[in-house]
Amino acid sequence: MLLPFELVRKVVIDALRRSGASQTSAELQGDVLVEADMRGHPSHGIQRLPRLISRISRQLAIANTTGLHVWRSGSYLSVDGGRGLGPVIGAGVIDALAPAARSHGVAIAAVRDTNHLGMLAWYAERIADLGLIGIVLSTSEALVHPWGGRRAMLGTNPIAIGIPAPPEASFVLDLATSTVSMGKIADHALRGHPIPDDWALDEAGHATTDPAAARRGSLTPFGGAKGYGLGLAIELLVASLSGSDFAPDVHGTLDDEHPCNKGDVFIVVDPSARSGRSIASYLTAVRASPSTSPDRPVAVPGDGARSRRRFALEHGIEIDRTVWDEVTSLAVQAA
Amino acid sequence: MLLPFELVRKVVIDALRRSGASQTSAELQGDVLVEADMRGHPSHGIQRLPRLISRISRQLAIANTTGLHVWRSGSYLSVDGGRGLGPVIGAGVIDALAPAARSHGVAIAAVRDTNHLGMLAWYAERIADLGLIGIVLSTSEALVHPWGGRRAMLGTNPIAIGIPAPPEASFVLDLATSTVSMGKIADHALRGHPIPDDWALDEAGHATTDPAAARRGSLTPFGGAKGYGLGLAIELLVASLSGSDFAPDVHGTLDDEHPCNKGDVFIVVDPSARSGRSIASYLTAVRASPSTSPDRPVAVPGDGARSRRRFALEHGIEIDRTVWDEVTSLAVQAA
Repeated sequence: MLLPFELVRKVVIDALRRSGASQTSAELQGDVLVEADMRGHPSHGIQRLPRLISRISRQLAIANTTGLHVWRSGSYLSVDGGRGLGPVIGAGVIDALAPAARSHGVAIAAVRDTNHLGMLAWYAERIADLGLIGIVLSTSEALVHPWGGRRAMLGTNPIAIGIPAPPEASFVLDLATSTVSMGKIADHALRGHPIPDDWALDEAGHATTDPAAARRGSLTPFGGAKGYGLGLAIELLVASLSGSDFAPDVHGTLDDEHPCNKGDVFIVVDPSARSGRSIASYLTAVRASPSTSPDRPVAVPGDGARSRRRFALEHGIEIDRTVWDEVTSLAVQAA
Repeated sequence: MLLPFELVRKVVIDALRRSGASQTSAELQGDVLVEADMRGHPSHGIQRLPRLISRISRQLAIANTTGLHVWRSGSYLSVDGGRGLGPVIGAGVIDALAPAARSHGVAIAAVRDTNHLGMLAWYAERIADLGLIGIVLSTSEALVHPWGGRRAMLGTNPIAIGIPAPPEASFVLDLATSTVSMGKIADHALRGHPIPDDWALDEAGHATTDPAAARRGSLTPFGGAKGYGLGLAIELLVASLSGSDFAPDVHGTLDDEHPCNKGDVFIVVDPSARSGRSIASYLTAVRASPSTSPDRPVAVPGDGARSRRRFALEHGIEIDRTVWDEVTSLAVQAA
């Protein structure tokens, strides 16, 4: 069903407030979740709220900590998230890195012991909207099999890149290195729809069109060997810098039983050497280039999300009724 | 035909020396080309030497310049390559970034007006072998169409990532964001072999299995929309930082008529927070995980290249006879 943005946001923030989050923490965490729904990524949307609140109640997530920042140098920040909420720790990291990147040209943060960041686009866009280039990397539970392999050994290891493109909206890329998310497969299972045979393997390591079998198996890396290589590089890079665990030992982004021991890396670069105007012109040329289908012009990453967001602001956010019932009940329960 | 490594290297270096390159420049440029052949990437191998030497003779490449280094801060290096050779400028950039990364945790270089770097793995590996993490990005002529588009608007925009993994060899990922290289398509054209229908579009923007038609058309991005997004992000990131041109206006990596106006970015990070041993153990676990085919174990990026390199050192490098004739003639011509 379609629900007004302001209503959804208010209920989500109320629920987080009732779980003990400060207004600031509740707004940051709530915004990341609601933005995901607005942009058409419900797997990272408010359906994650009940588990998150359960994590808070079990002290697997500490709602109001901003973590411990230790500068190894003027441009290298080590962050012990202290079980903080992803968006709270992440926003604090960006606030710290932005001036460092302006002073030094580049700054990096390696983050551990922090809960799920959620949709990485939110962070990359936040950095780009400051006039800086952002690269955000994260790891997760083992869900993806190596190319040529048949057991989940890697996280979905997303990468997001934000680049200022004034006077247009910032360029924002956000992709998981799996072909699709496990959330999308769960969604097919829920609806009883088969999946394409190149999305996942079953538990025995065979290609499957059965979403239920896929949920017990592993996701394919996107783009074959290349996507596998990229996902593996992200796994190693994040673990090397943050001291986080490797996928087979990672827990806590999908459950409410374990501390979250994946890692995150933020790189911020100051592109001041060049005006962004030509970036916008080039993107316009890409969009105007001939498309394969006359009714479907060439798009740039982020275009679809922006258009879905505009629709949601105008007409409401599509929220699953069961999810909404659960979220509203969390907002009205006694604290 | 199979030729001894030492012979190939000597002839290539002689040819570069005769074109006016110093011993140091000739060795750096020669090694990058010969290493590509040894690792099974002839498109980036010594077949590029004749055009490179023509570029030197036409002063589109200046063999012995190391470019102009300007530090914008202790960790941000701007490099005007002054038409230098890719490997000469690139090696100098790594020499400069490594101590900066050790002092500051992270260092970045944006490089313009430099000839083709060649195989990026060489640079990423050089950085990782210093105990540092390296990310190398580069752009190129317009060869790749946007996902959903049918005109080449992007470069092949490769990314390489090198990560120390002691006591094992460094992890090295090197991938172009096209499905295959234009060199591979040229190779099919030469042999009269058809290409799979998802490698390229013809000039009119239709999928084709004819390699000759594909050479006049455009390459597909790898992994559909995701690979397109990654390639586009690299295009924007490199241009934002280096001030290089965008793909439709880029020349000079494939011709001997234009200055080379693509850009390159190097990011070096010091992973000193973590011992590399667990990286090696994790990679061992990935390799040991069950494979889809019993006679083909799971591999890690770089494994194939290393094994081809070992073969080449022991048995000789596979070099095309026509290429070899051309290269040897360049080595014995009067300077």
